[in-house]
Amino acid sequence: MKKKYLNLLLIPILLVSASVYGQKKNKPNPLKEDAIQSIENRYSDLTNLSDQIWSFEEIAFQETQSAAALSDYAESLGFKVTRGVAEIPTAFVAEYGSGSPVIGILGEFDALPGLSQNKVPYKSPLHEDAPGHGCGHNLFGVASLGAASAIKDLIEEGKIKGTVRFYGTPAEEKFFGKLWMVRAGLFEDVDVVMDWHPAAETKAAVQKGLALVDFQVEFKGQAAHAAADPWNGRSASDALELYTSGINYYREHIKPTVRIHYHIQDAGQVVNVVPDYSRIWVRVRDSSREGLMPVYERVQEMAEGAAILANVDYEVNLISGIHEVLVNRTGSAALQKNLETLGPISYTEEEQEFAKKIQEATGKPENGLVSKIEPMEETAVHSMGGSTDVGDVSYVVPTIRLSATTAPNGTPWHSWAVVAAGGMSIGHKGMAYAAKALSMTMVDLFENPELVEAVKADFKENLGDYVYKGMVPPGPPPIKSNLQ
Amino acid sequence: MKKKYLNLLLIPILLVSASVYGQKKNKPNPLKEDAIQSIENRYSDLTNLSDQIWSFEEIAFQETQSAAALSDYAESLGFKVTRGVAEIPTAFVAEYGSGSPVIGILGEFDALPGLSQNKVPYKSPLHEDAPGHGCGHNLFGVASLGAASAIKDLIEEGKIKGTVRFYGTPAEEKFFGKLWMVRAGLFEDVDVVMDWHPAAETKAAVQKGLALVDFQVEFKGQAAHAAADPWNGRSASDALELYTSGINYYREHIKPTVRIHYHIQDAGQVVNVVPDYSRIWVRVRDSSREGLMPVYERVQEMAEGAAILANVDYEVNLISGIHEVLVNRTGSAALQKNLETLGPISYTEEEQEFAKKIQEATGKPENGLVSKIEPMEETAVHSMGGSTDVGDVSYVVPTIRLSATTAPNGTPWHSWAVVAAGGMSIGHKGMAYAAKALSMTMVDLFENPELVEAVKADFKENLGDYVYKGMVPPGPPPIKSNLQ
Amino acid sequence: MKKKYLNLLLIPILLVSASVYGQKKNKPNPLKEDAIQSIENRYSDLTNLSDQIWSFEEIAFQETQSAAALSDYAESLGFKVTRGVAEIPTAFVAEYGSGSPVIGILGEFDALPGLSQNKVPYKSPLHEDAPGHGCGHNLFGVASLGAASAIKDLIEEGKIKGTVRFYGTPAEEKFFGKLWMVRAGLFEDVDVVMDWHPAAETKAAVQKGLALVDFQVEFKGQAAHAAADPWNGRSASDALELYTSGINYYREHIKPTVRIHYHIQDAGQVVNVVPDYSRIWVRVRDSSREGLMPVYERVQEMAEGAAILANVDYEVNLISGIHEVLVNRTGSAALQKNLETLGPISYTEEEQEFAKKIQEATGKPENGLVSKIEPMEETAVHSMGGSTDVGDVSYVVPTIRLSATTAPNGTPWHSWAVVAAGGMSIGHKGMAYAAKALSMTMVDLFENPELVEAVKADFKENLGDYVYKGMVPPGPPPIKSNLQ
Amino acid sequence: MKKKYLNLLLIPILLVSASVYGQKKNKPNPLKEDAIQSIENRYSDLTNLSDQIWSFEEIAFQETQSAAALSDYAESLGFKVTRGVAEIPTAFVAEYGSGSPVIGILGEFDALPGLSQNKVPYKSPLHEDAPGHGCGHNLFGVASLGAASAIKDLIEEGKIKGTVRFYGTPAEEKFFGKLWMVRAGLFEDVDVVMDWHPAAETKAAVQKGLALVDFQVEFKGQAAHAAADPWNGRSASDALELYTSGINYYREHIKPTVRIHYHIQDAGQVVNVVPDYSRIWVRVRDSSREGLMPVYERVQEMAEGAAILANVDYEVNLISGIHEVLVNRTGSAALQKNLETLGPISYTEEEQEFAKKIQEATGKPENGLVSKIEPMEETAVHSMGGSTDVGDVSYVVPTIRLSATTAPNGTPWHSWAVVAAGGMSIGHKGMAYAAKALSMTMVDLFENPELVEAVKADFKENLGDYVYKGMVPPGPPPIKSNLQ
Repeated sequence: MKKKYLNLLLIPILLVSASVYGQKKNKPNPLKEDAIQSIENRYSDLTNLSDQIWSFEEIAFQETQSAAALSDYAESLGFKVTRGVAEIPTAFVAEYGSGSPVIGILGEFDALPGLSQNKVPYKSPLHEDAPGHGCGHNLFGVASLGAASAIKDLIEEGKIKGTVRFYGTPAEEKFFGKLWMVRAGLFEDVDVVMDWHPAAETKAAVQKGLALVDFQVEFKGQAAHAAADPWNGRSASDALELYTSGINYYREHIKPTVRIHYHIQDAGQVVNVVPDYSRIWVRVRDSSREGLMPVYERVQEMAEGAAILANVDYEVNLISGIHEVLVNRTGSAALQKNLETLGPISYTEEEQEFAKKIQEATGKPENGLVSKIEPMEETAVHSMGGSTDVGDVSYVVPTIRLSATTAPNGTPWHSWAVVAAGGMSIGHKGMAYAAKALSMTMVDLFENPELVEAVKADFKENLGDYVYKGMVPPGPPPIKSNLQ
Repeated sequence: MKKKYLNLLLIPILLVSASVYGQKKNKPNPLKEDAIQSIENRYSDLTNLSDQIWSFEEIAFQETQSAAALSDYAESLGFKVTRGVAEIPTAFVAEYGSGSPVIGILGEFDALPGLSQNKVPYKSPLHEDAPGHGCGHNLFGVASLGAASAIKDLIEEGKIKGTVRFYGTPAEEKFFGKLWMVRAGLFEDVDVVMDWHPAAETKAAVQKGLALVDFQVEFKGQAAHAAADPWNGRSASDALELYTSGINYYREHIKPTVRIHYHIQDAGQVVNVVPDYSRIWVRVRDSSREGLMPVYERVQEMAEGAAILANVDYEVNLISGIHEVLVNRTGSAALQKNLETLGPISYTEEEQEFAKKIQEATGKPENGLVSKIEPMEETAVHSMGGSTDVGDVSYVVPTIRLSATTAPNGTPWHSWAVVAAGGMSIGHKGMAYAAKALSMTMVDLFENPELVEAVKADFKENLGDYVYKGMVPPGPPPIKSNLQ
Repeated sequence: MKKKYLNLLLIPILLVSASVYGQKKNKPNPLKEDAIQSIENRYSDLTNLSDQIWSFEEIAFQETQSAAALSDYAESLGFKVTRGVAEIPTAFVAEYGSGSPVIGILGEFDALPGLSQNKVPYKSPLHEDAPGHGCGHNLFGVASLGAASAIKDLIEEGKIKGTVRFYGTPAEEKFFGKLWMVRAGLFEDVDVVMDWHPAAETKAAVQKGLALVDFQVEFKGQAAHAAADPWNGRSASDALELYTSGINYYREHIKPTVRIHYHIQDAGQVVNVVPDYSRIWVRVRDSSREGLMPVYERVQEMAEGAAILANVDYEVNLISGIHEVLVNRTGSAALQKNLETLGPISYTEEEQEFAKKIQEATGKPENGLVSKIEPMEETAVHSMGGSTDVGDVSYVVPTIRLSATTAPNGTPWHSWAVVAAGGMSIGHKGMAYAAKALSMTMVDLFENPELVEAVKADFKENLGDYVYKGMVPPGPPPIKSNLQ
Repeated sequence: MKKKYLNLLLIPILLVSASVYGQKKNKPNPLKEDAIQSIENRYSDLTNLSDQIWSFEEIAFQETQSAAALSDYAESLGFKVTRGVAEIPTAFVAEYGSGSPVIGILGEFDALPGLSQNKVPYKSPLHEDAPGHGCGHNLFGVASLGAASAIKDLIEEGKIKGTVRFYGTPAEEKFFGKLWMVRAGLFEDVDVVMDWHPAAETKAAVQKGLALVDFQVEFKGQAAHAAADPWNGRSASDALELYTSGINYYREHIKPTVRIHYHIQDAGQVVNVVPDYSRIWVRVRDSSREGLMPVYERVQEMAEGAAILANVDYEVNLISGIHEVLVNRTGSAALQKNLETLGPISYTEEEQEFAKKIQEATGKPENGLVSKIEPMEETAVHSMGGSTDVGDVSYVVPTIRLSATTAPNGTPWHSWAVVAAGGMSIGHKGMAYAAKALSMTMVDLFENPELVEAVKADFKENLGDYVYKGMVPPGPPPIKSNLQ
């Protein structure tokens, strides 16, 4: 499997890279100044686009309007757009330029169920029970496209050579659309990929997050009248309940970095019948796919045990699984320089007040928005927290990642609070900042082939002899599974 | 609590009653002949009405069209109809005549979810996922109204005196509508009530069935990210799962007549969040309410145990509960005589063929339809099987019950097969037969005050000093709970 | 499998048999008077022997002194004694006479753990934590040997012809010694077997009791330090706990006549180690072996399910299993006559006082000792309660069974109260009464070949085409398993 | 609660302390040379004493012979010995000298159940099922007493002034005897305490280990015949099983540093009775007592939940609980210097061969014995692994701790392998080495009041405002609980 990250070896490279590719603080090179200007010129377009997607409230694989809005805008700017890639109606690629290097940038745009929210600093659903952008993806896709557009301008103006390619990547919150885009070979000819994520702080993103796998277990028994002849029934609910018991007993025997969680989706239909069908969605996570796999195997096997205990049949079906991120510290160091050049986002008093009210409403310390640029973090061996399907992209192409502030410090993620902040100027500012920082780093990559090579070398070093294989079942992506 | 049924004491009474009130076989008295003729005259109306209700496919508390069709028909015949009684929009009373005796008759008309079926002897849904009359209630209400109409004719013609009252009783399959009709005092001035039920055999119904209680348990915990900080979560799903574990352990310590079943209705919303809400529907049954109550108490208490184990809050809410039937063998003996007079239903070869195809399709012995009249059964101390909200009526007024063949021998009840047979001539014949047998027995009651007194004495004897109290929560019936 | 008991067919036979073989009340025939006299002559020997065995307090397969005392006494009377039969050191056969018929009689003599008690009517252990005769087996073996001795006298005196054979049958309370005695063919040449059991009433014993099977499940995992690396452990305790969970969930799906109980014998050794070994003793019962077998199969299979859930190995080992009793109502009717002839046991006021004090101490109605002879009971289709390894004898040879009063009405069996009463005159009287009734019925069998034939015919009728197969593992009986 | 360890602040102190108190490598000061000589002079005594204790195989609170052997030897050397301190018959204090400073040293000597082993490099019990020194405590007490004796010689010879005090501390493996010794105030006048522990490597011991608490939960229900009337039983085994289910579900909601383990000690007595009694030993651990307490509270509360679920009574009883170690890096740095002066233990080829055979037999890499002196480790915020009741001593007096090699690299601790190595020259060498290193560091403490002050300052800094309270129930220690 892949080699462990060799921190000591890389530090000298980083030091060198800083001196070779870096720019002095507060003195961006002219191309970067051009890129920043491009983004400022399109600020109104970008915020309108972001607000539209915010109001579309479309969940994974159902992002029809959002994908169309981004595609149309890219097309209007001159990008060549290919829609419906990788058998996913809402996935698309927008490309400009030709030849090497090919620099990609990722843009997500799906919302989360049940988080619809007005642009106010207290919980207030815009549409009852409707989805909302609780992960800031209305900003994500737009900022990336904004950065790509700035690069397009430079290519168009002949200032740099090569290809810039924007990936419209749906379904990050559920199913993990990038898996099928990787499977379709869409990243095969790319040199480096960039992305960012809305966050409560601004920094080069150098943590791995968690690998995970999602699968469903179905149990199939025999129905019977629960009062008249329960002895003729074989209960699929019994099997499911014994399965979760087994999983909970197993928790003693997993490493502290492993997480197993499940969602009982169906454990019977009516009270007076022994249920003949049940279904559970299980998720296993670990800080690496290497650690994940034996646990995944075990939890699958346990389904058989539960089925035997309850005398029912069972079926296990993989939904999808993602890798942790293969962090590229060389690329991150280049990004870090640009953050230091840009400096922190500045906020108005009104924005800070709005932020503090959100913090008050969510029980967090009322210290407002934070966007100070700290030195680049160490990459932890086991970084806990969330997961992203950018992980799989990072295993096939070197990936440089940014976090930019779009919500108050300490905001609970995947909550109404992120929706609220992402729908107004706080979110807009983060979006524009991200677009600038990403475009500046892309300028570095276009201008410095040595940087591209160093980023690639870092990728190879980290990957070692690990042979990537995406974790998706055969056949098309589960586009319709998310329809209600 | 109520006295046990005194079989030995009653047998002499039955022997006497047979000689006093009975008629000789095959020689119905003239009023009974009139009643039979009335029903034959309305055969076309009644089968049309039954087929309409069959096609309405309306579930508990949603039987708007079915209740209207029956009410309208009763009104058209001259009954005085009161709609929307007992705070239930689909409950109604249709009355004719005045003064004593007041003889009631019950009519149900609700369908069951998911059983929609064509009139063919193999599984074939008429409307996908729609309800269907898998318990034959399309026939039930109509036959009872047919019997009431025959009595109305006799009153109208001055041949008998008193009041006949038809009760349109919704929601027998879920929630148990009669509970609120009893609570509303609608049975207070009635002398005797009759009812029947579609079945696979024809007989006086002298088994008690099971008392039951339905209640919901909700657990309320604290949500948390299942990977990032599950230690900040308190899982409502854990509580629910530990609650069902507790229930299953408890099964060792309940009497063989007790049944406990449950339906997990909600155990979490998404896979990556520690669930803060869960809900389970629990049903406890026993052969008597007396046996039921301590088990019901225990299973309620257990919710607290599970809540403590999982560190969550909980709430237990009564839905409703019904008594077993207080069997009236004196009245049943009078009914039995009339069955013997009427003799079995006769079937065509086509009907027997249809029946055998249903039996083939449901894996039962292919012996067709059975309607032979057997001697009246013993009443078992513990009769297992199903439950009915007629139980509660039988605890406030003496109730005489009939089963009449409307489906092939051995048909799995609450299945498509009952829907199919109940929608064609097999069902129609059973319906007409039931109407006749019920009206004949009502003639006995109207003609013989001594029979009414003996039936009442039997009721009092059985009831003993038990003080009936219906098991429903305060407030209106849960009319909207069954809306999807 | 075996045919159901045909009650209606047998009743005429019984009526005939009563008139053919019976004697008039209070007029025993002279041989029976001789037998009664024999027993009275040996009353002092028998009570001494019973008190000795009472004081030996020896549990299953460890009854060395008790078996020796009975064997020695039989030998001293002239019986030919074979000790250590069927590979069981404490099993023996004492025979007298030769030729047909061969009439056997069973005698048990094992005590129960933890019931040591003084001869006082309140709980008072004789030896702390020592066994005691809580099932009255100190009386059982002695009474049977007393009856056999009376028959021996008659053979010796030439008054009857044939063979009487006493079976010293150990380990009835655990392991079920008779299984191996049956396997060894010790009952192959016997015509009829008799036995009795101490009880709280006196009657022909015509209920079947329960078939049962005992087996052990062992789980074998991998030990690990429970704090340092529990993820390297595979817990045998987890497997056992999930196994019992599975069993408890399964309770919903067994018939009301089935019982499953278990004893967790070992679920880990110390608190800080993931346990690598666990063991559970499981017992399944049903009212018939026919009903028992599929449940037994199921509960065995479940061990595999639990093992898979916990990722451990497992082993299932049969301990032993017994049949319900094949009741012989023809033989029982002959016994009933003799009970009616003998009439009830009479008690002194002191004995009734002692009995009432026991009843007071155990919270029972204080109505003293009951030995009235009631008419013979119906044999229930499903008779619940306890089990006996006489069941297996009854499946290979017709068996006639007696209950005789040796303890107060309502005494909790397997308690100190049975020990107390069985150690003093109440027990002695029951023992002598049993010896008399048994010897009288044996006289009937020796005198009336037609009775023997009728008893055999009843046996054949009941057995039908069922082919008996004892449920014991291959190899010798588990003599050493009960050593501490 | 106590302040977190302030690593950054302490590093300068350590650097200073090294230059002030340290000696150059390979040049021990004369007093240390004297101490080393003392130990070498007594080498034969010490190894004999260690081998005796090894062969006594005495478990917690039963170490009568071992305590006597150590006490007698101390007395023979001139120590003033007080036996049976802190209400523990096998606890004692051996003191020499007078006045300040008072330097204590701890000595353990209890064995572990079931680990009896011959002095051979493969599993081979010396006495079947007997205890064995699987934690090397036969060496522990002797080495500490050896070190104390060397100091005694120096005091006796007038070379240093003050008091040396050896604490004979029983029951470290179970119950944690030091808790009661702390409670009895035996450490109140001590300046610094030292101890060591047998290990597979040689180093200053600067990890905290885990705090833990042990408690028992008993459930008390109602017995009933498991076949005849299980509905009259309330099962203490059900309660216990539901309790462990609850614990296992709770594992999802504890922090990764927490461990919960349990030992089912009694879950029923016989298979055919609903068990009325059950008992479980539960242990909760965390990297700090602060983290431990809320989990301990929760797991106690859960007993009530399980009791309610199973309708039984329950009782929770604290056994004892220990703190993690309050590490004293200032003292450790002084010890580290002495280890560097002494250098590694050297082994013969035979010893290395013996070690490799043990490694082969236990499936470890066959790399023999390791005693190289590495630089002092960082103290981890959360150090996982085992626990020690030295933790509580370290919370009332500054404690300096050593690990010394007495077993092959990678040896599974608490195994036969530790017993084997600890009974022969490998163990003896480690014991002598420990005695020397400890005595050298004690010389530092006696010679340098500034060091004592710095050690005390470190202690105070770490303790902060935390107020120590030992976790033991009122009343005497559970001396008899460990008798079989």
